[in-house]
Amino acid sequence: MTDRIVNFLKSVRPDGPCLVVDTEVVRDNYLRFQRAMPDSRIFYAVKANPAPQILALLAELGSSFDCASVQEIDMALAAGATAERISFGNTIKRERDVAAAHARGIALFAVDCEAEVDKVARAAPGAKVFCRILCDGEGAEWALSKKFGCEPQMAIEVLEHAHAAGLVAYGVSFHVGSQQKNPRAWDGALASAADIFRTLSYRGIELKMVNLGGGFATRYLEDIPGEGEYGRAINEAIRSHFGNRLPATIIEPGRGMVGNAGVIKTEVILVSQKAKDDIRWVYLDVGKFNGLAETMDEAIRYPIRSSREGEAVPCVLAGPTCDSVDVMYERTPYPLPINLEIGDELLIGGTGAYTTTYASVAFNGFPPLASYVI
Amino acid sequence: MTDRIVNFLKSVRPDGPCLVVDTEVVRDNYLRFQRAMPDSRIFYAVKANPAPQILALLAELGSSFDCASVQEIDMALAAGATAERISFGNTIKRERDVAAAHARGIALFAVDCEAEVDKVARAAPGAKVFCRILCDGEGAEWALSKKFGCEPQMAIEVLEHAHAAGLVAYGVSFHVGSQQKNPRAWDGALASAADIFRTLSYRGIELKMVNLGGGFATRYLEDIPGEGEYGRAINEAIRSHFGNRLPATIIEPGRGMVGNAGVIKTEVILVSQKAKDDIRWVYLDVGKFNGLAETMDEAIRYPIRSSREGEAVPCVLAGPTCDSVDVMYERTPYPLPINLEIGDELLIGGTGAYTTTYASVAFNGFPPLASYVI
Repeated sequence: MTDRIVNFLKSVRPDGPCLVVDTEVVRDNYLRFQRAMPDSRIFYAVKANPAPQILALLAELGSSFDCASVQEIDMALAAGATAERISFGNTIKRERDVAAAHARGIALFAVDCEAEVDKVARAAPGAKVFCRILCDGEGAEWALSKKFGCEPQMAIEVLEHAHAAGLVAYGVSFHVGSQQKNPRAWDGALASAADIFRTLSYRGIELKMVNLGGGFATRYLEDIPGEGEYGRAINEAIRSHFGNRLPATIIEPGRGMVGNAGVIKTEVILVSQKAKDDIRWVYLDVGKFNGLAETMDEAIRYPIRSSREGEAVPCVLAGPTCDSVDVMYERTPYPLPINLEIGDELLIGGTGAYTTTYASVAFNGFPPLASYVI
Repeated sequence: MTDRIVNFLKSVRPDGPCLVVDTEVVRDNYLRFQRAMPDSRIFYAVKANPAPQILALLAELGSSFDCASVQEIDMALAAGATAERISFGNTIKRERDVAAAHARGIALFAVDCEAEVDKVARAAPGAKVFCRILCDGEGAEWALSKKFGCEPQMAIEVLEHAHAAGLVAYGVSFHVGSQQKNPRAWDGALASAADIFRTLSYRGIELKMVNLGGGFATRYLEDIPGEGEYGRAINEAIRSHFGNRLPATIIEPGRGMVGNAGVIKTEVILVSQKAKDDIRWVYLDVGKFNGLAETMDEAIRYPIRSSREGEAVPCVLAGPTCDSVDVMYERTPYPLPINLEIGDELLIGGTGAYTTTYASVAFNGFPPLASYVI
C-alpha cells in the first residue's frame, strides 16, 4: 500500500470498489527480476494484469510477453512489443488462432502433444516450439492440475515430431505452481529438462531454451523468498543438471510482477450476526465475482487494512451478490476491528494480479471491478 | 435441445462459443409454475439470466421479478415490469441503493438483521420488508452457505424492529438450496415461518406473506421432480403448518425457469494424452471462465451431445484458458465418443441459467460468452 496509492484514493475518491495499481512498484519488480536472473529473458504473463499502462511500461523496460490468446498478443503489440518479444504460451490453441498469431509475426509457441504440433506446423510453418512437461507443484499455494504438459518421456517424442514436421524444436517449459514459496522447487523439473536435452542431442536435435515458467510468490500475509533467493537456487539447479552446456532461459512472472503493486478499495456494506452472540459477518462491495476470485477455497489470504484501531475479532468475510458461494473467508475467519462500521472503507493489499480480468461481466447486475493504473 | 435451437445454429453458424436460449421453453416453464402453484405470485430471479428478451416475455406473461441490485431493477423496469411487481431481494444493500430503488417506486425489500432494517427505514420509509431465515438446504445439489438469513428466533426481533421503525413487517423468506430435488424440503422452513407468524400475531403484528424462494431443479442428467410434485408437497406443508390462516405466497424460480431453455455450442480445440495409454483430455472453447462456472467442484453435470456415434470413453474435460483450475470434469471423467476430433462441435444442454453473467470480463483475453435469445 504505497503513498502514491493512498494519495490517489484520497484525492480522487472513486465511488464504488476499485483496484489501484502503482506502476512504480511494477518497475521496481521488473528491475529486481532482472538483477536476480540477469541471464534470463523476462516474458511477463499478460493474463495476470493486461492493463495497457502496465504493458507499455514493461515494453519500454525491455520485457517480453507471454500471451494466452490472440487478444493478448494484440494488446502486447499495441503496447509497443515487437513480435520477436512475444510467446504464444497457451498449449491449447485453435488452429485459426495459431494462423492469426503467425500472420502477426509471432514465431514462438507452446505445445504439449503431437496434435498441437501438427496445428503449428500447418498454420505457422518454421516456427519455434517448446514442449511443456508436467511438474508436481509441491510447495506451491496453488498446485497446478495436470491440465498443461505431458510426461517428460512423451515430450521427447513431441519434440522429435516437431523437428520432423519442419518446426524448430526449441526447448522445454514447465510451471512449478502459482505462488511457489520453495526456491528449490525448480530442481526436479530442471533435471527432467536436462534429460530431454541430452536424449534429443543423441538423436541430432539440439534444444536451446528452458522456459522456467512463473510461480514467483508475491507477498500476502506471510513472508516469501526474495527474487535473489529464487535466482540463486535456480542458477544452482541449472548448473548442476546442465553442466557446461547452459541453455538459454526465460521466466514468466505474472503475480510476482504485479501482485504487490495493487490495492483494492472496498466499502463495508453490512456487519451482522445470524444469532445472538454468534460470529460477526462482514459484507463488502467486492467479492468472488468482482475481483476476489482467488479467495476460492480460501487459498489466498490478502492483507486488509482498516483505519479503525479497535481490538480485532474474527469475522466471516463475504461479497455483495445474492450468491451463497460469494464468501471469501469462512473456514478460517478474518480478524477485523470490533468497531468496524457500515460505510467504512477497507484497503485490500496484494491485489494487482488476477483480479480485474477474473471479474464477471455483470453477475447479479454488478459491474466488473474498476481499475486505475497510476 | 429444441429443434428451434438446432435450426438456429444450423442457419446462423455463429463463430466461437455461444449460448442459445429458446423463449418457447421459458414460456412453457412459466405456465407450468403457474399451474403447479396457482395461489403463488411468481418472482423470476433475474440473476439466473437477465437477457432483455427473457425479461420482456416474462413481464408480458404477468411475472414479477426478484432483483439483486439496482441494475437488475432497471432491467426489469425496462422490460415492462411495474415497480409493484419488483422485489429487492438482496439482504445486503448499500443504503444509497435502497434509496435509488425507493426513488423508482420499489416497496418490497429483503432483510436479515436490524442494521439492514435501519437502512430501509431511513432510505425507503414505509416499505414492506420480509426477513430471511436460515434453512439447512438438505437435498440440494448446491446447499447454500449461511450467508443469507438469520436464526428464526432472531427474525422475530428483526421484524418487530421493522414494525417499530415504521416499516410494514410483511413476511418471512427462506431458500431451500439451489437445484433442490426433494419437494418435501420446504416443510421444516415452513414450520419455522408459521411459528414466527404466530409469535408476532400475539404481539399485535400480522405478517402476510411467505416467500418460498427458489431451488426448483432443472433437468441435467438425472430425473427431477415435475413442477406439479413441488406444488403438491409445498401446499400440503403450508396447510399443515398454517391451518386455516393461509399466508400469501411467492416463489422465486431462476434455474427452474430458464435452465433447460438454453444450449451452449462449443468446439473441441484439442484431444490429447499426458502419457501413452493415459486418460484422454478434451479441451473446449468454453470453460469455467466463459460460461461453465457452475461446474465448480463438479457440482453440476451438464448433458453433452456430439454427432459422433463412436463408443463412449471417459475423458477429462477442460476449458481454453491458461488457468489450471479451468477444468470442468476430472474427478469423475465424462464419457465422450472415442472418435471425437479437434474441430468437432458439441452441444451442452441445460445451460440457460447462471452462464452468461457469470462469465469473466476478459480472462486470458478471451471474450465473455455470446448469447442469442430466439
